[in-house]
Amino acid sequence: MSAHRGKLPGGKPIAFQGARGAFSEEAARQLLSRRVPVLPCERFEDVFRALAEGRAEGAIVPIENTLAGSVHENYDHLQTFNLPIVAETSVRIVHNLIAAQGVTFSKIKRIFSHPVALNQCLDFFARYPHIERVPFYDTAGSVKMVIEKQLPDAAAIASAVAAEIYGGHILRRSIESDRRNFTRFFLLRRPEYARRHPPRASKNAAWKTSLVFSTRNIPGALFRALSAFALRDLNLTKIESRPLRGKPWEYLFYLEFLERADAPNAQNALNHLRELADFLRVLGSYPKGA
Amino acid sequence: MSAHRGKLPGGKPIAFQGARGAFSEEAARQLLSRRVPVLPCERFEDVFRALAEGRAEGAIVPIENTLAGSVHENYDHLQTFNLPIVAETSVRIVHNLIAAQGVTFSKIKRIFSHPVALNQCLDFFARYPHIERVPFYDTAGSVKMVIEKQLPDAAAIASAVAAEIYGGHILRRSIESDRRNFTRFFLLRRPEYARRHPPRASKNAAWKTSLVFSTRNIPGALFRALSAFALRDLNLTKIESRPLRGKPWEYLFYLEFLERADAPNAQNALNHLRELADFLRVLGSYPKGA
Repeated sequence: MSAHRGKLPGGKPIAFQGARGAFSEEAARQLLSRRVPVLPCERFEDVFRALAEGRAEGAIVPIENTLAGSVHENYDHLQTFNLPIVAETSVRIVHNLIAAQGVTFSKIKRIFSHPVALNQCLDFFARYPHIERVPFYDTAGSVKMVIEKQLPDAAAIASAVAAEIYGGHILRRSIESDRRNFTRFFLLRRPEYARRHPPRASKNAAWKTSLVFSTRNIPGALFRALSAFALRDLNLTKIESRPLRGKPWEYLFYLEFLERADAPNAQNALNHLRELADFLRVLGSYPKGA
Repeated sequence: MSAHRGKLPGGKPIAFQGARGAFSEEAARQLLSRRVPVLPCERFEDVFRALAEGRAEGAIVPIENTLAGSVHENYDHLQTFNLPIVAETSVRIVHNLIAAQGVTFSKIKRIFSHPVALNQCLDFFARYPHIERVPFYDTAGSVKMVIEKQLPDAAAIASAVAAEIYGGHILRRSIESDRRNFTRFFLLRRPEYARRHPPRASKNAAWKTSLVFSTRNIPGALFRALSAFALRDLNLTKIESRPLRGKPWEYLFYLEFLERADAPNAQNALNHLRELADFLRVLGSYPKGA
């Protein structure tokens, strides 16, 4: 993934949804560099638009979480916008208790965070029943508020990156109840950029290709669609069906396989699939993440 | 689904996650009756436990959302607890603006709700930039608070059921940006109950069976697993793979097909699948929801 590391051409930022210090920013740092310039956006759609319109040089979007499932909205945007996936990474969702410098754990009476984060730390709260949970707009934003107001009796729950960005002090690390909580992110580029700087991987590294297709009448259709890959010994790493609302018996499938889309057997499989599918879009080929 | 309507044996409640008036309560009303007694629980795990331990007579759990994807956590609990699915239903996530009686829309300066709900109404907020968004612990809970405090300048965003339960007044209906927002729920019972009161459907109604299985080495394995259904003309309505963390090349699959599990061709397909899968659990057979 060397093509994605280091400095960015023109210094344009990487767009993501959420405030500075969101888990998407951790993904951006993992894939690019610790000092990557970023453009926080309000909605996922804004993230795609910022990249498509050239205000950003790349975009980071979450695509699935091990507890919450696939983010269908971003799959929808991947179909609408023509912005290829050039890299993937997984971030473990680690919730840290963060307060202003000088505030000790024994002083804490209130903890602010996004309700989803608060709910993922219920075992922690069960051990400290005197501490009040206070919902806040987002995880990183709750850190910003607690630090800016220098609250002497409050902390926030967020990523370690948020603590660093806002100058917070981590009182307790990893207070989430379930550690099997990972989010997978894609890095997207504009098509011209991806052509000029194709993703690279070390020689024996595996590649993944992500695609979306639709078929009518699932019983035989899906089985035949998968034969395009099975007959060519291509390994699938993901398959997911999604019923199309208002179109009974039409399904959208997200599929991933371990090969570059331009490898000969992948090309044959995709041509075979094109015969069977009503619609097919390759979303990108990229080095398999760790 | 007549077996699930009407009065409940013993008057024991139906458990669900969230506060009174959550969308799960709407699902319970759709599947059972408007006056169904309910047991709100803090976590999904508590919901399963309440049913398993007999404190509830049924449980309602969300299993997938058209924007956010499958709720893997509940699939995990379905595997751990032996609580069969006996019915399914879909609820359209309609966000309503709710205030205390006598409060008019022109007075509203602040709107409380769960951040996810607030974010699903961004088009509405763009039209009224003077209105402040205030994050709250949950949607229904924000209605309760606004009504109890009789706030003269505030409203909450939640389901119509929440407005009814807490005596709120609906100022604006359906203010969500995306109307393709549906959540699918399962009704679960204890195995003895499901045996004594098997789910019934009208004569020509379709049935669904949900199952979970795992295989190693996905390429040929999934293709062969699907052949168990394709060879018997069984229609799949859902397939989803989930990589098992820490177990490379092992996958869990959620699969649904249109037939009762005890129908002869389904029995044959399941026996065939058992030969191929490392693990297989049928989660339930139930009438297909509208």
